[in-house]
Amino acid sequence: MTRIVQIGLGPVGLRTLACALERPENKLVAAVDSDPDKIGRDVGRLLGRAKLGVTVAPQLPAAARRAKVALVTTVSSLEACAPTLIACAQAGLHVVTTCEELAFPWVTQPGPARRLDRAFRASGTACLGTGVNPGFLMDYLPVVLSSVCRKVEKITVRRTQNASPRRIPFQQKIGVGLAPAMFRKRAREGSLRHVGLSESVHGIAHALGWRLDTVREILKPVIADEPTAAGYQPVLAGQARGVEQIARGMVGGRERIRLHFRAAIAEPDPEDSVEIVGDPGFLSRIPGGIHGDTATAAIAANAISAVLRAEPGLRTMFDTPVPAGRGVQGMVGRG
Amino acid sequence: MTRIVQIGLGPVGLRTLACALERPENKLVAAVDSDPDKIGRDVGRLLGRAKLGVTVAPQLPAAARRAKVALVTTVSSLEACAPTLIACAQAGLHVVTTCEELAFPWVTQPGPARRLDRAFRASGTACLGTGVNPGFLMDYLPVVLSSVCRKVEKITVRRTQNASPRRIPFQQKIGVGLAPAMFRKRAREGSLRHVGLSESVHGIAHALGWRLDTVREILKPVIADEPTAAGYQPVLAGQARGVEQIARGMVGGRERIRLHFRAAIAEPDPEDSVEIVGDPGFLSRIPGGIHGDTATAAIAANAISAVLRAEPGLRTMFDTPVPAGRGVQGMVGRG
Repeated sequence: MTRIVQIGLGPVGLRTLACALERPENKLVAAVDSDPDKIGRDVGRLLGRAKLGVTVAPQLPAAARRAKVALVTTVSSLEACAPTLIACAQAGLHVVTTCEELAFPWVTQPGPARRLDRAFRASGTACLGTGVNPGFLMDYLPVVLSSVCRKVEKITVRRTQNASPRRIPFQQKIGVGLAPAMFRKRAREGSLRHVGLSESVHGIAHALGWRLDTVREILKPVIADEPTAAGYQPVLAGQARGVEQIARGMVGGRERIRLHFRAAIAEPDPEDSVEIVGDPGFLSRIPGGIHGDTATAAIAANAISAVLRAEPGLRTMFDTPVPAGRGVQGMVGRG
Repeated sequence: MTRIVQIGLGPVGLRTLACALERPENKLVAAVDSDPDKIGRDVGRLLGRAKLGVTVAPQLPAAARRAKVALVTTVSSLEACAPTLIACAQAGLHVVTTCEELAFPWVTQPGPARRLDRAFRASGTACLGTGVNPGFLMDYLPVVLSSVCRKVEKITVRRTQNASPRRIPFQQKIGVGLAPAMFRKRAREGSLRHVGLSESVHGIAHALGWRLDTVREILKPVIADEPTAAGYQPVLAGQARGVEQIARGMVGGRERIRLHFRAAIAEPDPEDSVEIVGDPGFLSRIPGGIHGDTATAAIAANAISAVLRAEPGLRTMFDTPVPAGRGVQGMVGRG
């Protein structure tokens, strides 16, 4: 039995918790959220089901000390998330978090990463940042695929999503319906950015033993050529129907890593692909692509078993065992 | 610097060693083979290059004690390989091996697996079985892909290889040119079998927490409909142009795992694919497929860094960090 604490009960948190509770080995013992509308409510009700006997607390309650793992699904920023993570370490908890900047923080935020690493080593527990992206599709999966390569010259990852069926907040986040000037303004403010693309570049480079000169990021709107009603609001020709973001990792003056993230409504051919130029070189494709909301919740819940087997400290997907999905039965022992 | 011992200098061993020596962090300190034609020769010469100053010994030499990792590329049978592995454990060596039956031996050979596990735990080192198949394409990769799944109902893996450009021994191994009666005779003798398919089924089931009722294996010839000169010798209509092997993992009376291995000359559409029926469900394809000879050598060489970070004992790909390919530069530290 693995006793868990859920910290963060937004859409991602509720989905992650629902996935975790589908595994018979997991049991919720505490839940935390800062939203006054949620504090004091039974978590089962927030999940839209029968009461679980666990009410939402504004801070880590005493009951959390009986737990083994915290699922932290609060914010994308490591800085904003750090106090929560430190509190988990001090409570002796392992952590799985969807905090995007924790997917590979060693280069982008070495100081905070080292402080977290020390805190978790001191408590003898591990902290793992994961999710579908960052955490899987554009970093871990290409590195896994590279395992069969004698040489890798270049890795190109493309994630092309059709946002038409996605939630309104997601469509708003990618700038659907914005005029180009407004899109650029939002981009400058940072509110349109897919968080984690640089972390993915650094994670791949680390895993492959590459020393990056620079990481360059480009962000631009995907402009509608014709009007479309595929999104949550009509989009005119010339307005943005989504976002395109490219991160390039340069090694020795050459582009060795290229991550191409594109999410737009009315996008005709969604797909996730990894192309490796190397020996052997190959193209791996997932036509249609992987749905992000379910997948992030799933990999975070699946990673509970991985973090329990990981070395103490701040870990990444590159130094923990594979999370693995769960089947129709419960976990069985080895052998 | 990682000092390595190469045990087994056949085609796979030489390829693996060549890959390992491409990494500047690896240094060969000893080499072992039972072939009288190789004993006493310089390993560099066997690799077709300048002398390395390491001569082939018939047994683990004293120099091996200065090494950290042994690459064991001798035989497919765990039973036949076990004495070598035990000797490595006693010499305090970590081991990466391409022994197919070690990809996931916990169910098919629990007694020998436990004995090896004890020996490596006692020495504080780890032993990992890997390769392109088993070890990657039909077990580890599908499990990695399942990590983003909330539920997995069924996993189907297909490896379809065009053997036309492959080495003669490979074509002979898959029965190219045999009459059906001779093919069946060889199949009964076990000489046509792809070793490791059952291990792959058990490994997937373990990683997903499935309790298998049974594993069923079918092996049959791929019969040529028309004459073909694509192979190393002419094949007439009605003769075998290759082998098809299917392993089915049954859980609760239903087929949950299906591994479909097919290798034949004049095979039109080689591909490696993983299909997951689940939430989300998806199909992952590598058109053209991954070339086995290079890939097995590469993943074994890449796994050196993974085995050094693994917990002591007998490990599988499911409980070690991702091997990761190597780039154009050497390994750099984290941070």
